[in-house]
Amino acid sequence: MSLNLKTYTEHFTNPLYLESGRILEPYDITYETYGKLNDTKSNVVVVCHALTGSHHCAGIYEGDKKTGWWDSLIGPGKAVDTDKYFVICTNVIGSCFGSTGPMSPQYPHHNPYRYKFPVVTIKDMIKAQRILFDKLGIHNVHAIIGGSMGGMQALQFAITYPNFASKIISLATTHATQPWAIAFNKVSQEAILKDPDFKQGYYEKEDIAKNGLSGMAVGRMAGHISFLSHESMQDKFGREYRNTDGLYELFGKFQVELYLEYNGYNFTKWFDPLSYLYITKAINIYDLSRGFDSLNEALEKVKAELHLISFKNDLLFRNYEMKEISDTLTKIGHKNHHYLDIDSDYGHDAFLVEIEKFKEYIKDVLND
Amino acid sequence: MSLNLKTYTEHFTNPLYLESGRILEPYDITYETYGKLNDTKSNVVVVCHALTGSHHCAGIYEGDKKTGWWDSLIGPGKAVDTDKYFVICTNVIGSCFGSTGPMSPQYPHHNPYRYKFPVVTIKDMIKAQRILFDKLGIHNVHAIIGGSMGGMQALQFAITYPNFASKIISLATTHATQPWAIAFNKVSQEAILKDPDFKQGYYEKEDIAKNGLSGMAVGRMAGHISFLSHESMQDKFGREYRNTDGLYELFGKFQVELYLEYNGYNFTKWFDPLSYLYITKAINIYDLSRGFDSLNEALEKVKAELHLISFKNDLLFRNYEMKEISDTLTKIGHKNHHYLDIDSDYGHDAFLVEIEKFKEYIKDVLND
Repeated sequence: MSLNLKTYTEHFTNPLYLESGRILEPYDITYETYGKLNDTKSNVVVVCHALTGSHHCAGIYEGDKKTGWWDSLIGPGKAVDTDKYFVICTNVIGSCFGSTGPMSPQYPHHNPYRYKFPVVTIKDMIKAQRILFDKLGIHNVHAIIGGSMGGMQALQFAITYPNFASKIISLATTHATQPWAIAFNKVSQEAILKDPDFKQGYYEKEDIAKNGLSGMAVGRMAGHISFLSHESMQDKFGREYRNTDGLYELFGKFQVELYLEYNGYNFTKWFDPLSYLYITKAINIYDLSRGFDSLNEALEKVKAELHLISFKNDLLFRNYEMKEISDTLTKIGHKNHHYLDIDSDYGHDAFLVEIEKFKEYIKDVLND
Repeated sequence: MSLNLKTYTEHFTNPLYLESGRILEPYDITYETYGKLNDTKSNVVVVCHALTGSHHCAGIYEGDKKTGWWDSLIGPGKAVDTDKYFVICTNVIGSCFGSTGPMSPQYPHHNPYRYKFPVVTIKDMIKAQRILFDKLGIHNVHAIIGGSMGGMQALQFAITYPNFASKIISLATTHATQPWAIAFNKVSQEAILKDPDFKQGYYEKEDIAKNGLSGMAVGRMAGHISFLSHESMQDKFGREYRNTDGLYELFGKFQVELYLEYNGYNFTKWFDPLSYLYITKAINIYDLSRGFDSLNEALEKVKAELHLISFKNDLLFRNYEMKEISDTLTKIGHKNHHYLDIDSDYGHDAFLVEIEKFKEYIKDVLND
């Protein structure tokens, strides 16, 4: 069967009440669906994206070269089988792929929000999604799956809306962002803020898309380090040098340097710097325990069947951070949770590139 | 007894023939000595500094607040006992604390070299030191000690000048810089190069000293991540926030962010950006095997008693990189080498801050 990919943008005129006390009004949510909603609306699987991801998690647009970011996991006959499930993935608020973010027009004057955009949190992101699903007549779902910031959303769903999803699968994430990850985000934020072409937030979108923003490229390079591991870098690049004769040239380059340059500068052509600042802020302040006395108390809310998948040498979110969730759930007597630590050399990127290692697991969880 | 700290700058008019085939002529070497050279000149201990270190490894200058970078290790009655040993530490060529570097005047016109400065290597750095020692009438030494880039120099001494030192102690380093470390250097280099105030290398020293260079600050922040570990960051900063009321302020800050800002921006006031580019280049292209068929063959040169000290969660230079040196030495039948892997939560910084954990070891090695 076909993937049945459809992209929509839904406009909301009611205010979205944010965790900060501020409101977003009106706002848009762009989302994508795959497969077909069944008559009882019991076959919905929600997919949540990471920092720089989007609603486009599977399939390929006409004329594009790259598929959606989890295409090897989601599709007809795949682990998240769109012949069976109706998959929805929304672009988070604060992002730059259709949902309302800092460069969206602020009503009524239609100038971009820029710094007037409110800080949004992971909780706000899932609240907006929940409102969208309600509008679509979907009041509970079979499963929610996400990795990295997507995994944060999945866990936040489990706590904030305990009856909403039967199954939660959260990969390569944490219960509260630790200083190591905050530090990497800091390098990126600082690199953006100090780039004169960022114009203190008053840049023109078109200029960035055309010329890139070197500060954001530098920041993204730091990000890429955090996504990889010593082992994957050694395998991928070793000490390979572009031109051995140029070893003593100050600007001669190792393969790993070319990789970072390519990905860094390419990134600035498709991602918005203000969105980067706002979403990394959301990640930094993410803490499942906020509003509770402890992680214990927060996790006592969880009713769903919960699956936690970590990767052994993920250096951005360490596997012990996820194990702590699992251990806490065990301690408080949650009956139906499972923790899987996957051996991988890919570091944090494993949740995107080592699908082979967990797709059967996800398939079984969904079909169980 | 007193430390007997003395600082000198020696001027050399003969050309220094570099690994690249280029020459440096004339050149200066700034160095510091502690203790007293004995009559037989048999009590010399050479200390080698890291990337941003200097010849000032012990004691304190009048009016300064901070001591030399290894002051808790070196001094009267300390592990490197200046009552017993005559300690010499030189500022490496390429650096910015007195020895000739990219901002030194180029003869005969006296304008700074800037990009005309040749790429120098770890081998060049120790060659210059060797020439200095010769000039001082010191043709062999009791021991050479260094950590990080200082450890690279110590190892390079063992291979390039096998009869020069009786004992070599190398800490927190590697036999060849791996892509993980190169990647961190890349972020720093790129951040410097793309900063308009860097003026493509044609900045005024005074402007940087006065205003800082935000690109170098950003790069240094990335550097600091690589010096730390998940554990040390968790201990040191946790998720502490400067102002909890400001959690939803885009520019509200975690403690770890303030630490990076402070150290990043402070750094730009005392270190030269061109030196940073040149020294990180030297680190990137450092490879003990260069000029040999293999690491085996390179290490066959080693005659000294060799001590390798790694730190368990050093993320910049992994402990297994040093173990590889030890294993190779064992394989090729080198009789007198020792590998010590120290348990520490401090990451790479351990060689500077966890002196307690190895000072007795170093004392025993020197006094044996």
